[in-house]
Amino acid sequence: MMEKKGAVILLSGGLDSATAGAVARDQGFAIHALTFLYGQTHAVETRAAKEVARFLGAEKHLTLNLDLQKIGGSALLGTTPVPKGRDLKTISSEIPSTYVPARNTIFLSYALAWAEVLDVFDIFIGVNAVDYSGYPDCRPEYIAAFETMAHLATKMTVEGQRRLKIHVPLIQMTKGEIIRTGLSLGLDYGLTWSCYSPDPQGRPCRHCDSCILRAKGFEEAGVADPLLSSL
Amino acid sequence: MMEKKGAVILLSGGLDSATAGAVARDQGFAIHALTFLYGQTHAVETRAAKEVARFLGAEKHLTLNLDLQKIGGSALLGTTPVPKGRDLKTISSEIPSTYVPARNTIFLSYALAWAEVLDVFDIFIGVNAVDYSGYPDCRPEYIAAFETMAHLATKMTVEGQRRLKIHVPLIQMTKGEIIRTGLSLGLDYGLTWSCYSPDPQGRPCRHCDSCILRAKGFEEAGVADPLLSSL
Repeated sequence: MMEKKGAVILLSGGLDSATAGAVARDQGFAIHALTFLYGQTHAVETRAAKEVARFLGAEKHLTLNLDLQKIGGSALLGTTPVPKGRDLKTISSEIPSTYVPARNTIFLSYALAWAEVLDVFDIFIGVNAVDYSGYPDCRPEYIAAFETMAHLATKMTVEGQRRLKIHVPLIQMTKGEIIRTGLSLGLDYGLTWSCYSPDPQGRPCRHCDSCILRAKGFEEAGVADPLLSSL
Repeated sequence: MMEKKGAVILLSGGLDSATAGAVARDQGFAIHALTFLYGQTHAVETRAAKEVARFLGAEKHLTLNLDLQKIGGSALLGTTPVPKGRDLKTISSEIPSTYVPARNTIFLSYALAWAEVLDVFDIFIGVNAVDYSGYPDCRPEYIAAFETMAHLATKMTVEGQRRLKIHVPLIQMTKGEIIRTGLSLGLDYGLTWSCYSPDPQGRPCRHCDSCILRAKGFEEAGVADPLLSSL
């Protein structure tokens, strides 16, 4: 049996990264899942990442601690309250306080380091430029620039013939399309987690940007959210 | 009095980054020094970073823990022995086992995050493409690509008019020129540390690539290394 080609998948435990992982699996990649604990107020997400990694049959799942709280600057790090009850138009057009400075750049840098150690040339990230909550580091032009930089950054690309590829299978999809894609690949969204600000009982708040975008997605896909129906 | 413009300085405690910091200070920047503990076998370097930051009059000195050992892949992380007794030609032409995968990309990503929180647009890094030990992420084309990526990555560059600049004042200098530059700016090299592999008494080994390059630098500059004369 031929050995599968490996890929590093940035897996937060959220809906998007789980779908990106399902796409990678469907494309025949052996999955090396990478999750970060960075003091986010919604650390429950990383427990979901473990479940999703197992569901996807990951060869390895690495969880790294990042010292981002010392840098601060984001509602997701507990600096200011997570915004609640914003409408979809505002969510899609403004850079919110949940933006974590340079987060995807830091995440992709670690993915690049691990890819080099594993000798794999494919990284999957579930960024999305449609329902993307206004983060600058989710745009196609940012991803392209990271890829160009990565090509110059590492021993493997300097010495080898191959070019590192950042796969962004969801970048042009709506939330509804993302969910339909995952469902068609057999993904169990009941394992995923989106809420930035769970209630004291550990249930999704349903009012933060992330809950609102998730609800919109399931509505568009015309299916019930298995996470909510299991509560 | 006008407030000084701030800059983030990547400060390892080594000779190069200390010199880059001295150049930044000389150019009138208020210094925000950033040091990483990443399981390097030569953690004594980070104690030197504290001394250098104080010497440079840094406004703030942040030391972050990086979880790089789980990723592995470098002699500096204790995976394999640090090479000793290599000649200068080999040091300058090969990528050595002390290469840490994607290290400068990870370091610069954190610097970018902190710069955004501080609202500063200048980052100094002491990379060097002459006596550079063959690391791909010390080359000018890599730095330029990182700068382009950074411009697309953050809220401050998306919303603002300004462009982030990565300063590499040492990139075209020999080790001798670096040391002469630092001395002309009053830098005390006795505070800096270079050795990858100190002996049991905590003294520089004098045989690793970093010790050999440092010795070459002081020889070229025609001065004694104050670190060695203080032992």
